[in-house]
Amino acid sequence: MTRTKIVIVGAGFGGLATIKALKNTPAQITLIDRTNHHLFQPLLYQVATSVLAPGQIGSPIRGILRNQQNATVILGEVTGVDKDKKHVLVTTDDRQNVQVSYDYLILATGVTHSYFGRNEFEKFAPGLKSLADAVAIRTKILRAFEQAEAEEDPSRHRDLLTFVLVGAGPTGVEMASAIAVLVRTTLKSEFRRIDPTSARVVLLDMAPRVLTPFSEKLSDAAKRRLADLGVEVRLGHSVDQIDEDGVVVGGERISSRTVIWTAGVAPSPAGKWLQVEMDRAGRVRIQNDLTVPGHPEIFVIGDTASLDRDGKPLPGVAQVAMQQGRYAGKLIHRRIIGKSAPGPFSYFDKGNMAVVGKGFAVLQSGKIEMSGFVAWLAWAGIHLQFLAESSLRVSVFLQWTWTYWTGKRGSRLIVNSTQQKL
Amino acid sequence: MTRTKIVIVGAGFGGLATIKALKNTPAQITLIDRTNHHLFQPLLYQVATSVLAPGQIGSPIRGILRNQQNATVILGEVTGVDKDKKHVLVTTDDRQNVQVSYDYLILATGVTHSYFGRNEFEKFAPGLKSLADAVAIRTKILRAFEQAEAEEDPSRHRDLLTFVLVGAGPTGVEMASAIAVLVRTTLKSEFRRIDPTSARVVLLDMAPRVLTPFSEKLSDAAKRRLADLGVEVRLGHSVDQIDEDGVVVGGERISSRTVIWTAGVAPSPAGKWLQVEMDRAGRVRIQNDLTVPGHPEIFVIGDTASLDRDGKPLPGVAQVAMQQGRYAGKLIHRRIIGKSAPGPFSYFDKGNMAVVGKGFAVLQSGKIEMSGFVAWLAWAGIHLQFLAESSLRVSVFLQWTWTYWTGKRGSRLIVNSTQQKL
Repeated sequence: MTRTKIVIVGAGFGGLATIKALKNTPAQITLIDRTNHHLFQPLLYQVATSVLAPGQIGSPIRGILRNQQNATVILGEVTGVDKDKKHVLVTTDDRQNVQVSYDYLILATGVTHSYFGRNEFEKFAPGLKSLADAVAIRTKILRAFEQAEAEEDPSRHRDLLTFVLVGAGPTGVEMASAIAVLVRTTLKSEFRRIDPTSARVVLLDMAPRVLTPFSEKLSDAAKRRLADLGVEVRLGHSVDQIDEDGVVVGGERISSRTVIWTAGVAPSPAGKWLQVEMDRAGRVRIQNDLTVPGHPEIFVIGDTASLDRDGKPLPGVAQVAMQQGRYAGKLIHRRIIGKSAPGPFSYFDKGNMAVVGKGFAVLQSGKIEMSGFVAWLAWAGIHLQFLAESSLRVSVFLQWTWTYWTGKRGSRLIVNSTQQKL
Repeated sequence: MTRTKIVIVGAGFGGLATIKALKNTPAQITLIDRTNHHLFQPLLYQVATSVLAPGQIGSPIRGILRNQQNATVILGEVTGVDKDKKHVLVTTDDRQNVQVSYDYLILATGVTHSYFGRNEFEKFAPGLKSLADAVAIRTKILRAFEQAEAEEDPSRHRDLLTFVLVGAGPTGVEMASAIAVLVRTTLKSEFRRIDPTSARVVLLDMAPRVLTPFSEKLSDAAKRRLADLGVEVRLGHSVDQIDEDGVVVGGERISSRTVIWTAGVAPSPAGKWLQVEMDRAGRVRIQNDLTVPGHPEIFVIGDTASLDRDGKPLPGVAQVAMQQGRYAGKLIHRRIIGKSAPGPFSYFDKGNMAVVGKGFAVLQSGKIEMSGFVAWLAWAGIHLQFLAESSLRVSVFLQWTWTYWTGKRGSRLIVNSTQQKL
């Protein structure tokens, strides 16, 4: 008897939840990802601001699935899907093209940055999606201070010490406040020619308020907190231009050598691979059982899927991906062992949180709205709980405690420095 | 009154010991390095084999000198020295050329890889000197296993799972045994198509024994231990060729996709900058007070200096650099405050150690020779003690304990994976 072949693409929150739900399923499961690690994306901004090391939020996928004997992991890039022949086209890390056939396919391929048609911005304003992105942004921020300290002409310090975040959603707010805290704690006493606390942090958005997924009251609380931290918030204008000298917003130029893109996202090409109906944003329209119309064997979940609830699409957050992954895994398991399918997928919204600097978060869950230190403790506890491995929970907890009390950071390294120019 | 200007180039063991010895000196000290961190090089092989994270052995120089108010740190690359005008030429991280003038100059610029005139080997056999090198080698090793697992043609597994170390000094022995332990512990249960324990680890040297700085008895103990770990040791032949298919040694080709250079080192260009007498290896010949003949204001210390003791040059090890740094700092301090110079530098040799796999080290100190678990405990204790920051001591200690008992590693990440090819 040949075993049922299940292929999962993407080892994010959705893909990992799916494969874990299939732990006891008599099947041969292949998980394909472009990296060798599951990334705990909600803490990515902490790697970009030197608090955590990459290894504290990136867990090797093989380690997570070490004891799941029905799972095989392949490091590779999916380039297409053949729905008729039922196989996935993969370019492996060794640059070989292989076909991986499936009986069930789960696409959990997430999103990438979107520059809203202005792809020329990317070169000057990198985004934050992967560990490689976070390390690149960390390097960019740390080098700006190094360059200013080495710069003998003080008129150049201003541009070097201006940091612009484009997009005031959770990532933009978290990054802006984390940079503000970085200069006021860790870097404060470490320079002799420049004053790191004179750094200017500017947060831009075309929306009229920060953190639009939250209530107006919490947006206001976050905005006041940002002001306390010295972050300049500019709302209601879109960015006209980003180049090597900085940004132009609402007709005004802000000179900066460090611009970071925290605005839009675009779904993965899953819809193009499948040649199926997509929503306006390019996400695959799925049915109530998370499958693609006409293909009960193809599931699309997480940020790259589009499913309406009460006439509004589900948000692109980890919770949705995890709940969808668990549902898809359960459904496939029941089909394989010959049981009836579960009822349609329903999403249980546990709420939203965002950190604004040291010891302050906003939290919204059902009718509960909170901001301040207690919300931050809740944020810290919940994030520790969701880390994939218990050793990381201990390590991140110790690091946070250490950084909270001493201001020292875990991984403030410029690894690709001038040594590579030799 | 203008303060005495002291310029130190290099923040390794030598440079850092010098600046610390100058803590209370009324002077204006500038420390110039190509990276933003002091690297604890003896543990670099543990980053290359995924045990430790880069941040656990790389400490930001600014953090170390945070409270030393007479010290300024510049991230930049020194390109020359003008002995007459008494200034150092520096290219900053921002690619500007600046001159930094000195009253005292300390060059502690270390060594780089040497391919003994076969620089074409470098492309296929990277060396291990910086964090960037260690991360690149870590990626190379981890990718070999990923590529083998994704490879459907088993005939290709052999080359992918053969690891060749060229040079059986401490780094080569430590790397070879660490790779052997990696496959037998961490990776063992994590693959489905390949058997990581079938990996072949080959250690080559033209010398007749491994670990030549140690006694023959300890060399033999290390060699037996390597054999127990399954490492193939081949001695007495130089490498004829290294290319993309592997190495040729003693006329025989060993096919391998992962060759690592752990053989020769060459000194920094300090001698060329200064235009002074060098030894055959290219190191600057210094006097008993560590200065260059005719220039009582120029000190050269550590691996890039050549000083004979009992007719033999001092070895290129951390202890020599640290003791020389402390001496140079003390001498300059006494000159500045108008005290008499100390007597000539004398080196106190505390001994040598090398790790051979999990829980085993060789140790030689004076007449003491040891090998085994107790030597490994001594090794671990001494290395923890010498880490620059107390927080790293705790973090490395916890990581070692965790890895020792569980076989899990701290930072097994491929950060620059296929995601960057998009």
